[in-house]
Amino acid sequence: MLRLGLAGFGTVGSGLVRILLENHEIITARTGQDISIKTILVRDLAKKRAVTAAPEVRFTTNPDDLVNDPDIDVVVELMGGIDTAKSLITRALHAGKHVITANKHLLALHGPELTALAASRGLGLFFEASVAGGIPIVQTLRESLGANRIERLVGILNGTANYILSEMTTSHLDFATALKQAKDLGYAEADPTYDIEGLDTAHKLVVLIRLAFGRDFPLQGVPVRGITQVTQMDIELAREFGYRIKLLAQARELDGRIEASVQPTLVKYTYLLARVGGNFNAVRVEGNAVGPIMLHGQGAGDTPTGSAVMADVMALCRGLAVPGWRFDNTGFGNKPLPQAEILPAEESVSMHYFRFSVADHPGVMAAISKSMAEHDISIAQAVQKGDMSGSDVPIVFLTHNAKAAAVAATIREIDAMSFTVRPTVQFPIL
Amino acid sequence: MLRLGLAGFGTVGSGLVRILLENHEIITARTGQDISIKTILVRDLAKKRAVTAAPEVRFTTNPDDLVNDPDIDVVVELMGGIDTAKSLITRALHAGKHVITANKHLLALHGPELTALAASRGLGLFFEASVAGGIPIVQTLRESLGANRIERLVGILNGTANYILSEMTTSHLDFATALKQAKDLGYAEADPTYDIEGLDTAHKLVVLIRLAFGRDFPLQGVPVRGITQVTQMDIELAREFGYRIKLLAQARELDGRIEASVQPTLVKYTYLLARVGGNFNAVRVEGNAVGPIMLHGQGAGDTPTGSAVMADVMALCRGLAVPGWRFDNTGFGNKPLPQAEILPAEESVSMHYFRFSVADHPGVMAAISKSMAEHDISIAQAVQKGDMSGSDVPIVFLTHNAKAAAVAATIREIDAMSFTVRPTVQFPIL
Repeated sequence: MLRLGLAGFGTVGSGLVRILLENHEIITARTGQDISIKTILVRDLAKKRAVTAAPEVRFTTNPDDLVNDPDIDVVVELMGGIDTAKSLITRALHAGKHVITANKHLLALHGPELTALAASRGLGLFFEASVAGGIPIVQTLRESLGANRIERLVGILNGTANYILSEMTTSHLDFATALKQAKDLGYAEADPTYDIEGLDTAHKLVVLIRLAFGRDFPLQGVPVRGITQVTQMDIELAREFGYRIKLLAQARELDGRIEASVQPTLVKYTYLLARVGGNFNAVRVEGNAVGPIMLHGQGAGDTPTGSAVMADVMALCRGLAVPGWRFDNTGFGNKPLPQAEILPAEESVSMHYFRFSVADHPGVMAAISKSMAEHDISIAQAVQKGDMSGSDVPIVFLTHNAKAAAVAATIREIDAMSFTVRPTVQFPIL
Repeated sequence: MLRLGLAGFGTVGSGLVRILLENHEIITARTGQDISIKTILVRDLAKKRAVTAAPEVRFTTNPDDLVNDPDIDVVVELMGGIDTAKSLITRALHAGKHVITANKHLLALHGPELTALAASRGLGLFFEASVAGGIPIVQTLRESLGANRIERLVGILNGTANYILSEMTTSHLDFATALKQAKDLGYAEADPTYDIEGLDTAHKLVVLIRLAFGRDFPLQGVPVRGITQVTQMDIELAREFGYRIKLLAQARELDGRIEASVQPTLVKYTYLLARVGGNFNAVRVEGNAVGPIMLHGQGAGDTPTGSAVMADVMALCRGLAVPGWRFDNTGFGNKPLPQAEILPAEESVSMHYFRFSVADHPGVMAAISKSMAEHDISIAQAVQKGDMSGSDVPIVFLTHNAKAAAVAATIREIDAMSFTVRPTVQFPIL
């Protein structure tokens, strides 16, 4: 018998309740345990819910009813936010309860502190649902790929952003229309800032870096660009070169330093990552033994994310069956993770896409090419649209590998030239 | 300290040795254990090896040196074959040793018996490496998706067959040339029967059905068609309709019965499964909570498969840290799995691809259409190649869902007609 205390009864909480009702038989067969929710912590007892919990479930607005109830073995935190969630998790761990959370923002900010507290008590602090919804990427990095030195990690970790970019690509919508459509379909929240500005993706990246590289990378150390600057024009131009634009989280280790970023990035259309459509998520991991692995699935939603929460509940069950079990929440035996040495963003090396907006004068192409050559940026492909002329002509260059510092310098130089009519657009290429 | 006894020092054994040498630091950091190989069982002590084991490793030709050595905690069976491997695993379990095996053929035939023996002793019998190489599909089905009712499973599980089909598709090779190329590259063995006849894929499917559906499906109950009958012509015709031909393992549950098959199958080119190229593997799982999940990676090879073996070693480590731990090898608490109720192959419903080879007479199209209509097979698309005429003209029909029994009956009927010059080719469509 395992009793859960659930904090938060929104989308994922409802999914968890549904899974426990609909798949009760399978869950019992696999765990040998009767697992149920005893109490649900909500803000508003009167609010109508899309899903009806079992009649014996108790509702409360008081966190004490989870933390102080000796019947409750596990607190499942699905309410989001920082301070209240952190307080609840801390109190639950102090009370000797295992914790499952989907709160990537909290983990990105305070993961090491909470992990240390759990480790000091031998308690589980599980978070499969915090990254990529139903995709078992936490488990895969922590356990299945545990014998690998992870060399690189690339993820599409935000379904809202991917939906918007996919619609801009396949239905030729502009950003605002695609965003509105995402809201209408319930894929984007009323305030979509975290999704479209890349912040949610950065939270998840920080969580994955810990699991993959065994180091703590500070959230504020991740350079983040969202998708609000991605235009229909750049998507079309990228497509002409055989690329799709995706919001990618990336991390890799180079000579002991970790490079991390969240940016709209051109991905060759032949890559599986370029084919991740709609609100799906995917994570590609390169291990020095396993080679490249990709996991693809629903990155959000009620029962997909609930499935991940239940994976954690069932993992807890396996450990709880044995007295003396101590949970390894990080995959590194609960030792505090060292701080990552950060590769400064300006040293980052990548191929790049440039779109210059220029007046159609003789010598423009030569001036741009010269500036790039002087900054040691080698051009792989170039196109000036033959059917355009006048005062605002796009010239697109795709480059070979170049340092971010050189890229920034050449953009500064070209943007200051008299023929440039609008700031240059630049994205990295995977 | 964990000491492994390794049986077999071929491709995967060499990969395991390399991983233990090259990633020793990471493995120790994650497990807190010094893991090493004590003894390697080989057939020929004099044989030159591509990889050199650590100097303290002992080589032997006597299985007793693994089974009777009290220092050895885990026997890793990577020698393949049935009788000798079964005998070794049985003896190791009786001697109280945990076992890790990559032997899908043995598991497909004798998995339940070996699992029961391991369960009776509380020992681990782990087999992540037996299916899809480095892809953590065993772990994902057994644990991460444990709260799901699995509705369907589709896999590309044989890298050799996928390489051959991919080369036939992208380089327009015929089967024999693609097979020769696979052999030259080391992707196919000297005797490639198991790979190209679909038998290896069927072994893996039986293992996955147990994990996904919790039932034992007899190997001889899986209808198997290999790829030797797949022609360049069918690959090209399928491509004209927007499909790729892949060797798919499929299983799904319909009203409590399990349908399983291994067949060359047309896959819409927009599906990620159609994009699985070269010698890669992929598994798509549909769970009633998580929705569709796809895992993609190297399905064979030294360190990719070695990575999966090491995942099992590290999972054993976690359990061994606690006295009294009993391993759950099936994901169903080691209870014997019930026999699957089998959906008879003739009741199977699917869309289909037909290629009729006919003499170019008036009324042929009408006769074929009439036969299909009489068998309740509804046509979705049809093409008779306009640039072909004479005594052997291909007519291709793509159908809506139809029962396998009706498909077989209409083929019998049409193949008996006077205008048919060669047996009709038929593949299902995913």
